[in-house]
Amino acid sequence: MKPLTKTPASESLARLVGQSVDAIDTPALVVDLDAMSRNIARMADFARKHSVLWRPHAKMHKSVALAKLQMQAGAVGICVQKTAEAEIMAEGGIHNIYISNEVVAGPKLARVAALAHRLREERGRLAIAVDSVEGIARLAQAMSEAHNEHHTPTVIDVFVEIDVGQGRCGAAPGEPAALLAQEVLRHPGLRFAGLQAYHGKAQHLRGALQRREAIGCVLQDVLSTRKVMAARGIPVELVTGAGTGTLVCEASSGVFGEVQAGSFMFMDADYAGNDRDPAQPQFEHALFVKTQVISSHMNHAVCDAGHKSHAIDSGLPKVVAPDPESELEYFNGGDEHGVLRPAGTGHRLPAIGRMLWLIPGHCDPTVNLHDYMIGVSGGLRTGTVERIIKVDARGALT
Amino acid sequence: MKPLTKTPASESLARLVGQSVDAIDTPALVVDLDAMSRNIARMADFARKHSVLWRPHAKMHKSVALAKLQMQAGAVGICVQKTAEAEIMAEGGIHNIYISNEVVAGPKLARVAALAHRLREERGRLAIAVDSVEGIARLAQAMSEAHNEHHTPTVIDVFVEIDVGQGRCGAAPGEPAALLAQEVLRHPGLRFAGLQAYHGKAQHLRGALQRREAIGCVLQDVLSTRKVMAARGIPVELVTGAGTGTLVCEASSGVFGEVQAGSFMFMDADYAGNDRDPAQPQFEHALFVKTQVISSHMNHAVCDAGHKSHAIDSGLPKVVAPDPESELEYFNGGDEHGVLRPAGTGHRLPAIGRMLWLIPGHCDPTVNLHDYMIGVSGGLRTGTVERIIKVDARGALT
Repeated sequence: MKPLTKTPASESLARLVGQSVDAIDTPALVVDLDAMSRNIARMADFARKHSVLWRPHAKMHKSVALAKLQMQAGAVGICVQKTAEAEIMAEGGIHNIYISNEVVAGPKLARVAALAHRLREERGRLAIAVDSVEGIARLAQAMSEAHNEHHTPTVIDVFVEIDVGQGRCGAAPGEPAALLAQEVLRHPGLRFAGLQAYHGKAQHLRGALQRREAIGCVLQDVLSTRKVMAARGIPVELVTGAGTGTLVCEASSGVFGEVQAGSFMFMDADYAGNDRDPAQPQFEHALFVKTQVISSHMNHAVCDAGHKSHAIDSGLPKVVAPDPESELEYFNGGDEHGVLRPAGTGHRLPAIGRMLWLIPGHCDPTVNLHDYMIGVSGGLRTGTVERIIKVDARGALT
Repeated sequence: MKPLTKTPASESLARLVGQSVDAIDTPALVVDLDAMSRNIARMADFARKHSVLWRPHAKMHKSVALAKLQMQAGAVGICVQKTAEAEIMAEGGIHNIYISNEVVAGPKLARVAALAHRLREERGRLAIAVDSVEGIARLAQAMSEAHNEHHTPTVIDVFVEIDVGQGRCGAAPGEPAALLAQEVLRHPGLRFAGLQAYHGKAQHLRGALQRREAIGCVLQDVLSTRKVMAARGIPVELVTGAGTGTLVCEASSGVFGEVQAGSFMFMDADYAGNDRDPAQPQFEHALFVKTQVISSHMNHAVCDAGHKSHAIDSGLPKVVAPDPESELEYFNGGDEHGVLRPAGTGHRLPAIGRMLWLIPGHCDPTVNLHDYMIGVSGGLRTGTVERIIKVDARGALT
């Protein structure tokens, strides 16, 4: 294991390795490594079965070590959302990176171009998304300036993003997207690599049928765009997208060649709220917040994990019931506290000092709250701390 | 300025000092230092006028440098919520610390006792809150063990917390609280220092009258508790509490001797939503997220700040209108994006590359998302980067 940067926090965490899960102070972000490994294996099998590439989104785990594990298991590379994430991953030895997002600022694009150049030297590859003529022009300018600086040609792979229902980034499908592809083709430093089509809002549609219908619409948008491009002699070599919620829809479409799902590795309470699609792998929870009861009263108890420990943008965490007679519901207690109440009549409240496990509402922003994750093997009840996982790209926003 | 730990992120930030605010990459957490200084001065004047101590909550800014600024302006010390925050602040040279929270775990209490011992050696002081007999016993045990280890008596100041409407921690007012005070008095290592009475839910009651009424109830609870304690010969030397929302209510009560408000220094969109109490200082916004437009469409634009840049637990950020014809409303665009729409008919959307300023919904958890804040003087339009403020206790949860 690569040595951690020497800080008091990392030194005290390093001492945990080999100790029982009981020794972990609270609140803490804990990974069930066995569950995580099974999820990685499930994804690898799934991608193989469907003959799609899997390029898991590293925005979720932000960890070089976990990106490497995924690539060792067959992932073709990683996605990131930010230039800074790409730089940190590249520094850690990940050389196949797709910034599945638009970058328009001059200084950022200079960094993008430098990274493209560097990854090429490592026989790797950098890709990026575009959704405007302005953005393409700026990207081309940056690549051209980098060429002049390095005196070697560097090419960056460019995906044209289409808005397939998210209402966020992306050109309209069809003609507008084709125009952008033609723009990309005009610049020698840019290589048109295909279409980015991610429907974020579909990921948490609760019904499996709803999700299939939503991706059905996505497919129509992708096919119509591909058709217009074909008519202009522009081949689309790859369509990339998909999240953990809709994964099987894109993977089995025969249209998408690459899936970007990231949350599958850890899962969270929001994804657990989806009705299961039987055709999709059953990923299991691998990310938990360990917390402790600090105050106990007649009708409620208080634990030491609030929304500085786990993100609540997609809902409050679920409490893993300590025993069948003590099912608990978590209520918002602020930044540093959680309020626990019995989930049913007659259910017992935990006493002061009791340790509990929470399943975070949303894994990505939960990981981003922590500098380290504590990896446990042998399960949460009786397991051992096996490794400390640094959240290398924590807070990497630019 | 104390040298920053040498990391690539901190080195590139350090290069910003002296540069125009335009040079700040996005998204970034920016402090308007002039507004911040005025807020500190307002609080210092206010506390003086009302003859109360001010012990601003450091959970908000998590920065040793800012804690020092506050103490130089007259703050008696700081509050924190976590043992780890206390340790980091003490390491930075802050020696008057109140952990306004319950701590019950053996290993944590050993750290608390060690810190109490250390701060006493620095002629400082550590205080903590309790709300149960169990918690008091555990605290006393830890102090006793530390005494045996150091062979010197160390005393920790203990506030009995009463639940004054929050429904979270705290004993019931009156008899139950008095029993706890008696428990504290039994232990030589514990010094009963008074009552902790913080009504978190009252802070964002929108009407000034509503807030006054809520604190009126708090005062009744405090007075009844004090009365019961007096009957048992237990003097209450200090009542501490109050937040930025209700500040003037506690400060002018003649009952509270110390106010813990923390958010006043930066403010946020949620506090700006309160109707103003004319008797309260008019604190101004000093905390902003700088963001940039990366994608622009017919009816919406997209900026690069999502909820990994600013906390949305208490609402979405407000957009500082770039000009009177371009008022914008911010909609949730996920972790790394914000969706902007015109706030009124005819208002213009910003173009790709446009820089914008956001006022975060909630300052405390927003600061906790960032490793550094960028301090700007001369205002946001034409100002200069003056200093980089490390968020020393970022992620300090244990």
